Amino acid sequence: MTAGRSYELTAIGRVESPLTDPGSAPKQGDEGVPDAWLVFEGDVLEGLLDIEPGDELLVLTWLDRADRDVLLVHPRGDTSRPPAGVFATRSPHRPNPIGLHRVAVVEVEGERIKVRDLEALDGTPIVDVKPVLSADLSER
Amino acid sequence: MTAGRSYELTAIGRVESPLTDPGSAPKQGDEGVPDAWLVFEGDVLEGLLDIEPGDELLVLTWLDRADRDVLLVHPRGDTSRPPAGVFATRSPHRPNPIGLHRVAVVEVEGERIKVRDLEALDGTPIVDVKPVLSADLSER
Repeated sequence: MTAGRSYELTAIGRVESPLTDPGSAPKQGDEGVPDAWLVFEGDVLEGLLDIEPGDELLVLTWLDRADRDVLLVHPRGDTSRPPAGVFATRSPHRPNPIGLHRVAVVEVEGERIKVRDLEALDGTPIVDVKPVLSADLSER
Repeated sequence: MTAGRSYELTAIGRVESPLTDPGSAPKQGDEGVPDAWLVFEGDVLEGLLDIEPGDELLVLTWLDRADRDVLLVHPRGDTSRPPAGVFATRSPHRPNPIGLHRVAVVEVEGERIKVRDLEALDGTPIVDVKPVLSADLSER
């Protein structure tokens, strides 16, 4: 690794989800997953101010079970398809395995936020949360 | 920091942009910014396979000039608005300053990809690139 290329990421919380087996996790969040909880660390709670039920959020996770040495993958694990560059796919396996999940807030309970449509495995570290903007959504 | 909460992120490239002054950078990419280049490190080039002009990408950056100790901000820097939790805003100032930018590919030239609508400052480290999916876009 070249000097000056690394940065330290700190988990701000963890996912609590009934999904525990990497093999059974759906490939995208809208393919039918149970509700999950985002559980935040005490030192970042002030940053959650203004998050409310009904909000659409982008949750960024650290996919700690991913393989960081992969640059080519078969899309969606389908070996009948030719390998693609990881940056042209949403594979968890990539040099910096940051997961990007669009979720809807169901409930806010102190340091715990219940969300719909999160396909992350139980225990996955959360590294950031952002609101969905209309500029993210527009077809162009 | 609690043990077991940190992860190492490695830059896979850098932004080359005429934007050099944090004060003059537009707040979102669709508010009129010049084209920029994504310039990748030699050791990740294989991961760019299949990225083509016309593609819509999400570029994840490390906002290395952000303040990581901020949990409350005035939205869009407007001090007439009450402070909001950073996770309810797109402020660069947040515990893990990961920038999320939706861009359109204009040109691919080896390790350099020219993109439209990238509001990141010149020299900003790139940490991941993902395709935009229809599930990201749908109104719900």
